[in-house]
Amino acid sequence: MSTHVINWEALRAYCQKIFCALGVPEEEALVVADCLVDADLCGVESHGVSRMTVYTKRLETKVVSAVFKVITERDNPAGLTLNGCNSMGMLVGKYAMEKCIHRAKTNGICFIAANNSNHYGMASYYVSMAAAQGMFGLSATNAPPNIAPWGSYKAYVGTNPLALAAPTHGEPVLLDMAPSVVAMGKVILAAKLGKPIPEGWALTKEGKPTTDPNLGKQGTVVPIGGPKGYGLSLFMDILCGILSGAQFGPYLGNMWNDFVNPQNVGHFFCAIDISRFTDLEIFKKRIGQMITDIKALPKNEGISELFLPGEIEQRRRLERKAQGIPVEEVVFEELRGLGQKYGVEFTLEAK
Amino acid sequence: MSTHVINWEALRAYCQKIFCALGVPEEEALVVADCLVDADLCGVESHGVSRMTVYTKRLETKVVSAVFKVITERDNPAGLTLNGCNSMGMLVGKYAMEKCIHRAKTNGICFIAANNSNHYGMASYYVSMAAAQGMFGLSATNAPPNIAPWGSYKAYVGTNPLALAAPTHGEPVLLDMAPSVVAMGKVILAAKLGKPIPEGWALTKEGKPTTDPNLGKQGTVVPIGGPKGYGLSLFMDILCGILSGAQFGPYLGNMWNDFVNPQNVGHFFCAIDISRFTDLEIFKKRIGQMITDIKALPKNEGISELFLPGEIEQRRRLERKAQGIPVEEVVFEELRGLGQKYGVEFTLEAK
Repeated sequence: MSTHVINWEALRAYCQKIFCALGVPEEEALVVADCLVDADLCGVESHGVSRMTVYTKRLETKVVSAVFKVITERDNPAGLTLNGCNSMGMLVGKYAMEKCIHRAKTNGICFIAANNSNHYGMASYYVSMAAAQGMFGLSATNAPPNIAPWGSYKAYVGTNPLALAAPTHGEPVLLDMAPSVVAMGKVILAAKLGKPIPEGWALTKEGKPTTDPNLGKQGTVVPIGGPKGYGLSLFMDILCGILSGAQFGPYLGNMWNDFVNPQNVGHFFCAIDISRFTDLEIFKKRIGQMITDIKALPKNEGISELFLPGEIEQRRRLERKAQGIPVEEVVFEELRGLGQKYGVEFTLEAK
Repeated sequence: MSTHVINWEALRAYCQKIFCALGVPEEEALVVADCLVDADLCGVESHGVSRMTVYTKRLETKVVSAVFKVITERDNPAGLTLNGCNSMGMLVGKYAMEKCIHRAKTNGICFIAANNSNHYGMASYYVSMAAAQGMFGLSATNAPPNIAPWGSYKAYVGTNPLALAAPTHGEPVLLDMAPSVVAMGKVILAAKLGKPIPEGWALTKEGKPTTDPNLGKQGTVVPIGGPKGYGLSLFMDILCGILSGAQFGPYLGNMWNDFVNPQNVGHFFCAIDISRFTDLEIFKKRIGQMITDIKALPKNEGISELFLPGEIEQRRRLERKAQGIPVEEVVFEELRGLGQKYGVEFTLEAK
């Protein structure tokens, strides 16, 4: 299948205009578009512009609010509960992490639980904000069920991702992981592209192994470490869904096929101000030592370099900023169609 | 190999007396003994009284301080750095989690990073304290290297466990997981008992699969989800070791064969006061719904019951409190030997 190589800023501007055409204010449309395009820059296509179709359909049907609003339901010095008022998840996320960063400066840490939100894209987007301020960042979100509790074949919890980031003298060390062997987004993307999936990624809805992404999409994805990955996912749902007052497990709305009821997604955000615990320079020096050490370790046969978490994505981001983002034909045509549908001139061209 | 079934309170009292004989004050000796015996009650024998030999040797050689002391190095409303003054890890842990719980009541959350500590036993011990107070608890510790960075065969990070607990109307939901397929403690225990280990648990120091626990002990354990488990472990070390000012990775002292230099282990503790984010009763009602739902899901062939994280351990705890703890012959004889060595009458007998 062919791909088109697109300039990242042109892609972001085009997506922004489409959101604007759907009533999202310009500045906020830029945040959402930036988060999506950043996923494509990093090579996390499952959370990138391939989601434009569903995002726009949700705005068009008004099942997601185009105008950002947030209500502080509980306000403690270092812990808040926010109501996202059914705004776009990226806007809730950016607002919440900025508040965490601000509050962590005086309290050492700040934790925010957010309810009544929507899909917030790539969790790493928010923890990067903390790392850029010299803070340790954490974030997670819940998502509709696609992992079965250990011992069952019926999905109950989502592949609720957890992201962590730590600042260094260079780029942050950043882990953004689903508690499954792969994110369900990758199975969905494979289905969209008509590509088979490796065995060990997903199970059919009867709990049988499969390489067919369409069967996998209807079934469950395999948790890492068996009960451990399931347990992690469950706890992310407890923090994101139950603590915040959002929905959880099977009660979460489905983004893909329910355009009537809000999803009521929950997230958490947390910033730890390192300078309140130790000297930030010492912290960065020591993490620099850790990185240097790891880079110098002996490699397995066939391995040319050892990477820190987030390093491959960061390298790809730089490369794609310079050379353009490869966009699959299917997604490219979807984007063209969205422009026609919402009256936005199609400005994307192969670089 | 035969086992002896021992009354849990007798076992705890005997261990307490041994610690007292080594200069640990009575009340503090009880905390340490309680944490060890609780691990045996839960069936986590790798973190139970099988560690008495090494714990006592470390006290005897004074490489670990018998007297508890802690210094607050940084004090922010919701975030502290504690110096554990080379005290026993359980004492640092209990003190720190109590402080987290206290501070979370006014701030919503409290996070403590502790340096200059020692092996703190089972991480679930501390998060249970938070759950018992209607709070969400988190804790992790670092440990000497036994996981290789992804792509290498050389250990750099420990199987740094992460524990999470949430209160319910009944027993807490509690996940205490190493980021590896199994904890290195299980490989060590298998070596002590002369039992082979399943393939997929550990690699030799050259990175080859093995079923020999002695080779596995010298090598590495396999991280869950490959780079994900390695990444989780790395981040636990960043929070426990680098943020706190403790040692990290290969710079951590070895508990088993270095009786001269303090280990300088680091931990973190965190309590989230649920009532500051939502109504605690609503939280418990919703988590109760989650539990009821999961219990009622269809089961895979051969599965008679679905368990929540921590449920099997809690059930075993009740059973063993009633019926006694099975202690392996090797460990039983070690305990007898410790009594002779430190002048404590051997009071254990098969129940």
